[in-house]
Amino acid sequence: MGAANQLKGFAVPLTPEGKSSIVPPPPWHYSSDCLAVEYWAEPAAVAALLPPGIVADPRAEGRCFFWFLDWQFTGENDELTDPARYQYREAFVLVDALYGDLRVAYCPYIFVDNDAALARGWAQGFPKRLGSVFQTRSFAAPSAAAAPLAPGSRFGASVAAHGERLATARIQLEEPVADPTTVINRPTTIRRYFPQLVAGKQHEPAVDELTLSLIDDPRIVDMWAGSAELAIPEVAGEDMHRIAPTRVGRGYRFSMSYSVTDLRILKDYRA
Amino acid sequence: MGAANQLKGFAVPLTPEGKSSIVPPPPWHYSSDCLAVEYWAEPAAVAALLPPGIVADPRAEGRCFFWFLDWQFTGENDELTDPARYQYREAFVLVDALYGDLRVAYCPYIFVDNDAALARGWAQGFPKRLGSVFQTRSFAAPSAAAAPLAPGSRFGASVAAHGERLATARIQLEEPVADPTTVINRPTTIRRYFPQLVAGKQHEPAVDELTLSLIDDPRIVDMWAGSAELAIPEVAGEDMHRIAPTRVGRGYRFSMSYSVTDLRILKDYRA
Amino acid sequence: MGAANQLKGFAVPLTPEGKSSIVPPPPWHYSSDCLAVEYWAEPAAVAALLPPGIVADPRAEGRCFFWFLDWQFTGENDELTDPARYQYREAFVLVDALYGDLRVAYCPYIFVDNDAALARGWAQGFPKRLGSVFQTRSFAAPSAAAAPLAPGSRFGASVAAHGERLATARIQLEEPVADPTTVINRPTTIRRYFPQLVAGKQHEPAVDELTLSLIDDPRIVDMWAGSAELAIPEVAGEDMHRIAPTRVGRGYRFSMSYSVTDLRILKDYRA
Amino acid sequence: MGAANQLKGFAVPLTPEGKSSIVPPPPWHYSSDCLAVEYWAEPAAVAALLPPGIVADPRAEGRCFFWFLDWQFTGENDELTDPARYQYREAFVLVDALYGDLRVAYCPYIFVDNDAALARGWAQGFPKRLGSVFQTRSFAAPSAAAAPLAPGSRFGASVAAHGERLATARIQLEEPVADPTTVINRPTTIRRYFPQLVAGKQHEPAVDELTLSLIDDPRIVDMWAGSAELAIPEVAGEDMHRIAPTRVGRGYRFSMSYSVTDLRILKDYRA
Repeated sequence: MGAANQLKGFAVPLTPEGKSSIVPPPPWHYSSDCLAVEYWAEPAAVAALLPPGIVADPRAEGRCFFWFLDWQFTGENDELTDPARYQYREAFVLVDALYGDLRVAYCPYIFVDNDAALARGWAQGFPKRLGSVFQTRSFAAPSAAAAPLAPGSRFGASVAAHGERLATARIQLEEPVADPTTVINRPTTIRRYFPQLVAGKQHEPAVDELTLSLIDDPRIVDMWAGSAELAIPEVAGEDMHRIAPTRVGRGYRFSMSYSVTDLRILKDYRA
Repeated sequence: MGAANQLKGFAVPLTPEGKSSIVPPPPWHYSSDCLAVEYWAEPAAVAALLPPGIVADPRAEGRCFFWFLDWQFTGENDELTDPARYQYREAFVLVDALYGDLRVAYCPYIFVDNDAALARGWAQGFPKRLGSVFQTRSFAAPSAAAAPLAPGSRFGASVAAHGERLATARIQLEEPVADPTTVINRPTTIRRYFPQLVAGKQHEPAVDELTLSLIDDPRIVDMWAGSAELAIPEVAGEDMHRIAPTRVGRGYRFSMSYSVTDLRILKDYRA
Repeated sequence: MGAANQLKGFAVPLTPEGKSSIVPPPPWHYSSDCLAVEYWAEPAAVAALLPPGIVADPRAEGRCFFWFLDWQFTGENDELTDPARYQYREAFVLVDALYGDLRVAYCPYIFVDNDAALARGWAQGFPKRLGSVFQTRSFAAPSAAAAPLAPGSRFGASVAAHGERLATARIQLEEPVADPTTVINRPTTIRRYFPQLVAGKQHEPAVDELTLSLIDDPRIVDMWAGSAELAIPEVAGEDMHRIAPTRVGRGYRFSMSYSVTDLRILKDYRA
Repeated sequence: MGAANQLKGFAVPLTPEGKSSIVPPPPWHYSSDCLAVEYWAEPAAVAALLPPGIVADPRAEGRCFFWFLDWQFTGENDELTDPARYQYREAFVLVDALYGDLRVAYCPYIFVDNDAALARGWAQGFPKRLGSVFQTRSFAAPSAAAAPLAPGSRFGASVAAHGERLATARIQLEEPVADPTTVINRPTTIRRYFPQLVAGKQHEPAVDELTLSLIDDPRIVDMWAGSAELAIPEVAGEDMHRIAPTRVGRGYRFSMSYSVTDLRILKDYRA
């Protein structure tokens, strides 16, 4: 094991200096602008996505949130000054669920436009694929193009993969939200999964765990609420449309930050 | 001409409804976050880039600014809510020059990551090519990843084209700038150029004009200054490195907005 | 004009050495693999796209071809060995039309994934926008993944812009086509158009011509025909779906090459 | 485990129908065009990249191959007709090494432009990151742009990541290679690695194995050899330049196909 220890990297590739690694080791620090739309999908379609040990939250009646995020990432070496490598955009769905008595959110679909983000996500359990993600930004210089945090401001967002539009949202701000925890208040559970390619064992994944995302110093600031629209169309080769909205609730725009240094394994499905 | 008038679009493609046009007609409204680095290049290399009627500003001694911009665009139809189509990033150089007695900035190189921006730019005279542009952003939620507008915050920026890094900058904020016009104070001149492909006439461009960019309601807010680094390496197939820095001055981070509805033609080179 | 002549470049940016120009001067040499689907659209919708001087071909009854092309480009300096800059993919529609007695094809919509190709296209009159284009390729090494030129081989193709799928095609090869001119036999007409931004003159384009694409040494080889499918869905902000298929004909897969050194101006709409 | 089994997908995301999975289950069929350059690097730099159980091949004296590949992939559902999702480009280095007495090639660096390819690669042990990869293609229609398989034809290739050019190659064909196994003749070993994020266990990867890539029905056809150039420049944040060429050998252009249904685990480093 001696030589192995001399190769460095939290993830691949492992090299003598560790510079080429797809992502630096934790701590991972994040700050973002977020656009999230509350909506309801067919409860049976939501339940069908949940892994063992997680059940649909009957009181939620199929409630989901579709999120779009512009992220800035840094580790301990000023990674935020290398935005070509580490800045990224993300879109995901969170569905209301129960882990025992605990009200949780479960993430069945997530898309990012950056490979460092994909690698961190897989290490946590986020089932990330690549996508092209955009959201209207709020700029400081006054203009018809500025989208300030003010009543009447309109924001749009979208996610596409392999040239197919997977979701489109629009919100119009109405009023600030004094307490963001009235909106965002469930911890996130995910399924950490790494496949096995050895013939005859392809149904025995190398890693298959239910995990709980642990975040340090979470902050949500400048939350506004308003009216919202959301479309999740059916496209070839995808099944996310099965949790398309049957009803759309409120839209939210806010900023969020936290750090990641740890992960909780709730259940090892291979045990 | 009747039928021609029924096809709509400020630019190609022209269609009966005009929806597919690469860009909507003016007014064009813009708001942005900007990172700009003042630097000095070899004065002869700067002078060699200037078109007829524009001369190097002898007092400038080769002074240039390298800009990186995250832009939001809108026209009159809420284009800012379609960020997948209209939000974009840009990088350009401005060199100090004189048009008669007027102190101007001339733009010899510019890169964007969006075709609507490229089309608007060509219509004005900006010699836009496609590139991949990034800058560190300032986020509201406090974090090591947030890059707030505060002393000590570090920002990076870069531009690449066809997989070659063309410029990389870093700045560290020191103090606010009370009056942005002490920094940004020259109107922009450009060369509006559209080629001719007819054999024997390929040296007689269809459009060849010196133009002055006209902007309405310009606003610069939240300007900070600090130390700066800038590299413009030599790469195959490019000549921007000829105005690489011989000396780097201050770095600036600010937000800027304006609208465009008009253009001034200073000179028609074909006349 | 002396100094002006010292700046080089067929198109922007003009520089002392001309290396940074978005595209080198002609001759432009091209070789490609092509997938084309013959189809019929609503004849009135086709006619509505034609510029003055071009009329619908009444015998064509709305016939169109939707093309997908993988292109290799070179000029006189081995540009084909810089594929990151010059290799590209393209998708376009050609609609049957008449210019006087001449049976022509007119190009109302075209998408490319490369800015050098966009610049050359605009110089000719092709109304190019950026898109993401893919087609199944035929590889020499035998495999279920090889898609050989043989009966039963299936090919797919698609084009997307700003994360919206604009067209998807599939063909299945049946038999070789002995004489490609029975399929591809109309010269291409296009509208060369460059806008005017000066206030009050925005409806007077700087360039507005009907042109005829001139090609040297055209070669079409290895043409196969087969069954075909084509979809052009309606998406937000686009109007290409107005010429969606009402009926789909044959699909074709072939290779094509030619050079471009000239352009014919059929009509100057500003005269 | 019952419910778990009802969620389908070889890799994430797991869904009731399995359509959204980043990659379909094996068999995986591949066909490609390849450009490979033989070169020698500093032997100590090569040895420093090898994992435990693999040692440098002393007779190889630092020999490596830098490969560029245009790939077409298919599974059992005509995935080759969805090139927007499954067609991709790749670049990697293989270094000569020994596993016991077996002459093998080890892959320390690899880049792809597609997430399905990244996911398959990680499952095998290829340390894939995202990059932008291009190679000159050989087209059937004769032209200065066609790059035929013939003496004197020139091909270029490049790989970039986050806007930094990581490698550039050029070859010029001289003669066919009758027996490709004189050139490509070592099985590929890789390190299958999946990290652990739980605090205190981040140096105990969840998966850490030495694997041997197993390929069915390998075919190499149309191999040509010629002169070659290769550059692997030093760029910020990367360490691949440590195995930059000290000497460049021959360049090769060929087509290759195989299928993947299995993987051999040579060693479990955690045991």
